[in-house]
Amino acid sequence: MTRGSPHDAVEVISSKRDGASLSRSQIEWVVDAYTKGVVADEQMSALAMAILLNGMDRREIADWTAAMIASGERMDFSGLSRATADKHSTGGVGDKITLPLAPLVAACGVAVPQLSGRGLGHTGGTLDKLESIPGWRATLSNEEMVAQLESVGAVICAAGDGLAPADRKLYALRDVTGTVEAIPLIASSIMSKKIAEGTGALVLDVKVGSGAFMKDAARARELAEVMVALGTDAGVRTVALLTDMDVPLGRTAGNAIEVTESVEVLAGGGPADVVELTLALAREMLAGAGVTDVDPADKLADGSAMDVWKAMIRAQGGDPDAPLPTARESHVVTADADGVLTRLDALAVGVAAWRLGAGRERKEDPVQAGAGVVWHARPGDNVTAGQPLLTLLSDTPERFDRALAALEGGYRVDPPGTPYDARPLVIDRVG
Amino acid sequence: MTRGSPHDAVEVISSKRDGASLSRSQIEWVVDAYTKGVVADEQMSALAMAILLNGMDRREIADWTAAMIASGERMDFSGLSRATADKHSTGGVGDKITLPLAPLVAACGVAVPQLSGRGLGHTGGTLDKLESIPGWRATLSNEEMVAQLESVGAVICAAGDGLAPADRKLYALRDVTGTVEAIPLIASSIMSKKIAEGTGALVLDVKVGSGAFMKDAARARELAEVMVALGTDAGVRTVALLTDMDVPLGRTAGNAIEVTESVEVLAGGGPADVVELTLALAREMLAGAGVTDVDPADKLADGSAMDVWKAMIRAQGGDPDAPLPTARESHVVTADADGVLTRLDALAVGVAAWRLGAGRERKEDPVQAGAGVVWHARPGDNVTAGQPLLTLLSDTPERFDRALAALEGGYRVDPPGTPYDARPLVIDRVG
Repeated sequence: MTRGSPHDAVEVISSKRDGASLSRSQIEWVVDAYTKGVVADEQMSALAMAILLNGMDRREIADWTAAMIASGERMDFSGLSRATADKHSTGGVGDKITLPLAPLVAACGVAVPQLSGRGLGHTGGTLDKLESIPGWRATLSNEEMVAQLESVGAVICAAGDGLAPADRKLYALRDVTGTVEAIPLIASSIMSKKIAEGTGALVLDVKVGSGAFMKDAARARELAEVMVALGTDAGVRTVALLTDMDVPLGRTAGNAIEVTESVEVLAGGGPADVVELTLALAREMLAGAGVTDVDPADKLADGSAMDVWKAMIRAQGGDPDAPLPTARESHVVTADADGVLTRLDALAVGVAAWRLGAGRERKEDPVQAGAGVVWHARPGDNVTAGQPLLTLLSDTPERFDRALAALEGGYRVDPPGTPYDARPLVIDRVG
Repeated sequence: MTRGSPHDAVEVISSKRDGASLSRSQIEWVVDAYTKGVVADEQMSALAMAILLNGMDRREIADWTAAMIASGERMDFSGLSRATADKHSTGGVGDKITLPLAPLVAACGVAVPQLSGRGLGHTGGTLDKLESIPGWRATLSNEEMVAQLESVGAVICAAGDGLAPADRKLYALRDVTGTVEAIPLIASSIMSKKIAEGTGALVLDVKVGSGAFMKDAARARELAEVMVALGTDAGVRTVALLTDMDVPLGRTAGNAIEVTESVEVLAGGGPADVVELTLALAREMLAGAGVTDVDPADKLADGSAMDVWKAMIRAQGGDPDAPLPTARESHVVTADADGVLTRLDALAVGVAAWRLGAGRERKEDPVQAGAGVVWHARPGDNVTAGQPLLTLLSDTPERFDRALAALEGGYRVDPPGTPYDARPLVIDRVG
């Protein structure tokens, strides 16, 4: 034990290793000491593995989350003239929902302070998508963010370095040590940032399925329940929707192509599933913020959500009317025979888009604004021989082969008349 | 996955995290990559925790041990004129057995290449004890070691840097990450060095009890069985004795005071338990080396073991006849009443000796040659009011209070006539 310190790293690690519940004092000490570099990476990774394998109870997770919040600053939107509501998605393929959702909810009178991230792996990043808009910038100061919330009502920007720095350090460590998949650590990572951000209401979109982080509904539900409890206990009105991610959302997975699709939704059109999920999440956010007399569907129909979108993009330096970048090369996959598309696997599409250049392999890699995958049919649709099923887009055609390899087995056309049972998009609600 | 590499760290960690058996290829890759610094400390500590919690089967442990041996050099004693036998103890309190044992076995005609370590924590280190002898040095080159084995027959020295460097790196990591207590890692750590050392026969003294690393017999037996199998499979004739470590061995725990006790045994006297265990281990080592016609008790009685001891100490620069350092201060604990000593706890005594300065808190700390604990009665002995029970020795009297605190509850005098059931010193034999 270090002189004058109430705990030491081996003691805390050994407690969790041996199946004990960590005390609040142990948790506060180890998170603080790790943030300061007193507890080393190799000690925290051993602890993370012990947490992954031996679990944490709700009280421990709450204490861990509080300790991560305490490692940094907290934002305060209480001076705003409107209520605030935020959304977090655990990440999916074609998941552009934040783009139409934030301006839509703002158009309904609730401010949306949406701190977002970049993509890593096969799930896209909201900031990467928006950065395909010429001039748009992701980084705002806290003051700019508050001012934009007051003037426009919605902001989508990068989280500052000040929020939960313990989480940033721990997340990078978990990524290289096989300890990402621990529900206590996933829940506290997400919720520490959302609670520190200071939103009044929060809706969690917990994805379930092949393209999601959580492949099965039971674990997704457990994660949702833990996060809802954490938010509620911290005074944030929190609900979670469990939503399907066996099939990718909408018609596109990429960056600029997903912005285009989002603008279609804001214009009153767009794919039905994207519209459905956007409205479902908007209604939850509005209810959480105490607004029950506005139907968000009206705000898509009357163009007011589109007005907020344009104002939001302009406020961050972007030109909402400028043409978006397009990929230099494309490759079309056609149907071999008449039939029914019975499978379009979210993971296969996500990995293909990633390999085409829409995502990055390392944190510091750039992404291609125009790259991605467009699918011309959704599961359940009839297709005819020779019709385009998928269009692959990339600036670098040497990527097509690896993308096609990812798609192998990821889609399937069965004989005409084969029935297809879609599972509902919104599987369940927690909270 | 790194270009051209068959594996990556997250893949290997995830396999063990999810309960899989690691392949030989995964094990060879991860041990080699860790030794070279390609796998980082924080990755190996996460893997170590996953191994601790999810276990390894015998094949994995054998592959892990082989990979650690392959990380360094192997010694070769096949050119010696005599057979070789070595002993390893998992560590106990008052465990000076190596000191009389090595020269005794050599006196019986079998060469003893004893690579030893320093103490860390409450168990003493053989090299620390021997370094209390003026002039004695622990470090020998491989050539000096072989020459001394030929000329004297016994050598006790520090393991060189060339043997199982992966183990040295991993051991230091486990020490600070709460991952010491994994049987696969303990077994492979011990056996990789013993197999690389090249001994022909090996006797393992696996301690069981409060003062031992293994507190319960089932786990100690499991460790013994794993190690015996590893040794046997590697062509080393290996047996293990499970021996008691609820009560400290002999009459002293420290450095110089344990050398004195060992010399008493070599002179044909000494505490009965130290003599018993020394002879039991000597008989196993001789049998392993194929020598069955010599009774080691005779070699204690006729002075030939003492002759080898003196030659061995002299060969390493020490003066076996020089007076040993003594502590500057002492503190005596006396019996409050007449009765029977029914408890003398090995852990309490070990921690007290450590706190008095016989052991170190950090690897780089020096130890006090004269510090330690002497006990004047053993469990089962009658004591009378006012008689000395324990003598505490230290150069730094401010240490007495913390040593006395460690001893609180660690010894107990019950009314005269209270029965005491000693458990046998040698509990079981494996192999």
